[in-house]
Amino acid sequence: MKGEEYMKKIINNPEDVVKESLEGMQMAYCDTLDYIPEKEVIVRKTVKDKVGVISGGGAGHEPLHAGFVGRGMLDAAVSGNIFSSPSPDRIEAAVNRVNKGKGILFVIKNYSGDIMNFGLAADMAELEGIQIESVVVKDDVAVQDSTYSTGRRGIAGTVFVHKIAGAMAETGASLSEVAGVAREAVSNIRSMGMAMTPCILPAVGKPGFVLEDDEIEIGMGIHGEPGIEKTKIKTAKEVAEILLDKILSDYDYDNSEVAILVNGLGGTPLMELYILNREVQILLKEKGIKVHKTLVGNYTTSLDMTGCSLTLMKLNDKLRSLLDASCDTPALKID
Amino acid sequence: MKGEEYMKKIINNPEDVVKESLEGMQMAYCDTLDYIPEKEVIVRKTVKDKVGVISGGGAGHEPLHAGFVGRGMLDAAVSGNIFSSPSPDRIEAAVNRVNKGKGILFVIKNYSGDIMNFGLAADMAELEGIQIESVVVKDDVAVQDSTYSTGRRGIAGTVFVHKIAGAMAETGASLSEVAGVAREAVSNIRSMGMAMTPCILPAVGKPGFVLEDDEIEIGMGIHGEPGIEKTKIKTAKEVAEILLDKILSDYDYDNSEVAILVNGLGGTPLMELYILNREVQILLKEKGIKVHKTLVGNYTTSLDMTGCSLTLMKLNDKLRSLLDASCDTPALKID
Repeated sequence: MKGEEYMKKIINNPEDVVKESLEGMQMAYCDTLDYIPEKEVIVRKTVKDKVGVISGGGAGHEPLHAGFVGRGMLDAAVSGNIFSSPSPDRIEAAVNRVNKGKGILFVIKNYSGDIMNFGLAADMAELEGIQIESVVVKDDVAVQDSTYSTGRRGIAGTVFVHKIAGAMAETGASLSEVAGVAREAVSNIRSMGMAMTPCILPAVGKPGFVLEDDEIEIGMGIHGEPGIEKTKIKTAKEVAEILLDKILSDYDYDNSEVAILVNGLGGTPLMELYILNREVQILLKEKGIKVHKTLVGNYTTSLDMTGCSLTLMKLNDKLRSLLDASCDTPALKID
Repeated sequence: MKGEEYMKKIINNPEDVVKESLEGMQMAYCDTLDYIPEKEVIVRKTVKDKVGVISGGGAGHEPLHAGFVGRGMLDAAVSGNIFSSPSPDRIEAAVNRVNKGKGILFVIKNYSGDIMNFGLAADMAELEGIQIESVVVKDDVAVQDSTYSTGRRGIAGTVFVHKIAGAMAETGASLSEVAGVAREAVSNIRSMGMAMTPCILPAVGKPGFVLEDDEIEIGMGIHGEPGIEKTKIKTAKEVAEILLDKILSDYDYDNSEVAILVNGLGGTPLMELYILNREVQILLKEKGIKVHKTLVGNYTTSLDMTGCSLTLMKLNDKLRSLLDASCDTPALKID
């Protein structure tokens, strides 16, 4: 364990965690997924003749992104090292496997490294005659600029963008149609999170920041970036109120129908997420906002961090129908 | 927070966690699931005219059992308080909702409280003319008797029993056929776990046992019951070897086809479970054991405990076909 003898993780060499976890994932879904060695890409075994949808980013947010590769969502996910962006050659490897000549959509979370590397990969692809569109997810309403982003961060709302873009691509729509509806989804999505304990990076072996025993952080990012404030522990009801108030004051969800995602950060048990969901549903009902679909679970994590995030996506007929469309991925299946 | 100000959990009053989490769960799946108030029962909204399959036990193991209620698995799940068995009147409420006159199978994890309370509920049902069969899951090979059990404990392998019994019941089979195949599954299933950090009960607010900073426990139960030994932290490869050796020395899986479950205890990130899965798959391949299906994730947890368990189920034609049958529950969907 290279001297990290007090790190309580199920790992081998900390330098191999990304490669080994992707290999271990592909082994669990070997009927439908391939793994491209050295490139840390998970890709559908059979890519249909359609617009390709590719996402990716730093590792440590599992099941994002590789868990959403499959029918009706992503065609490929590209992983960087933990909390660091994938290099352009990795993204290029995904493009080459997915490309069917109908163009490719990149779904990018708004972090400077991802913007740069997906941008370079887009340039490389276009030089080879492959048409690329990019959609940037910036759903986190907590802070306007952050440690690793200019503008808002992209967090768990990315899952809804994968779903909407993937469903649209599956219909045989054109690249501009797929990109268009993905941008519409982005504009309708807001998220915010709360962290209670820090995560421990395998290569570091100790927490990246400190929260006191009675302290939580509102609006913390999924890499431990600072949020809005550190505060005393809150009840589930108070957490729901704080997250929802900030989201609702940022975007007009009045009299809307929405999809929600109550997301765990990796170390928080499902029981607590269900308790939070109860508070969120009660508050939304009081406010006259109708919930069409609810996801509760670990969708976008931060290694073993405890805490949660809440995401709302405002629906219209088109987005509702794409959200409800059948999909089959390791982390989300809809009949 | 009733003085538990240092408990970093997303909860309200610790006494309400079971009720509120089940309500919050039902709200997320309100199209398919009902919640019976006061009785802590999650039940399918529409129960088919068939043998009923009911399970349950103490809360704190989410998604077990309520997460497996739905088409092709359980008809109802009965929850006790955290880590304590549901009272017979709760089980009776589930029986009354599920009963279609074709008999009911209880799937019981082998803990003294569950054996007693499901036994009493069976007696009560039979007095009312409802035929009950019970199947006891005792898959944990770690120890022969334990703190809360006479004989082996029932742990994550219970998920496979839910799947097999539920699929058989869905075919319209008789109670004795459903019970028979569930018993066959039980006899083919072995599990073993490992814990790295203790869980914190909401009503207690502090860990129930202590593991040193560099210590893990092999064979620990899902309520923190003692296992085989406390030992220094191991690599993923070593953990896989230890768990698999014990399982393979207990039952003859040679030249078999198996289903496996790499299960997280609640606080361990998916990334680590995938790394463990990789080691398990490599070892099984070396031993000539063919893996037909792999589940990786948090299926049977222990609140926020970190650690894992490994389960193997030996397949034959009948069990394979029932395992592969379509199901639609919150925590497991198979097309």
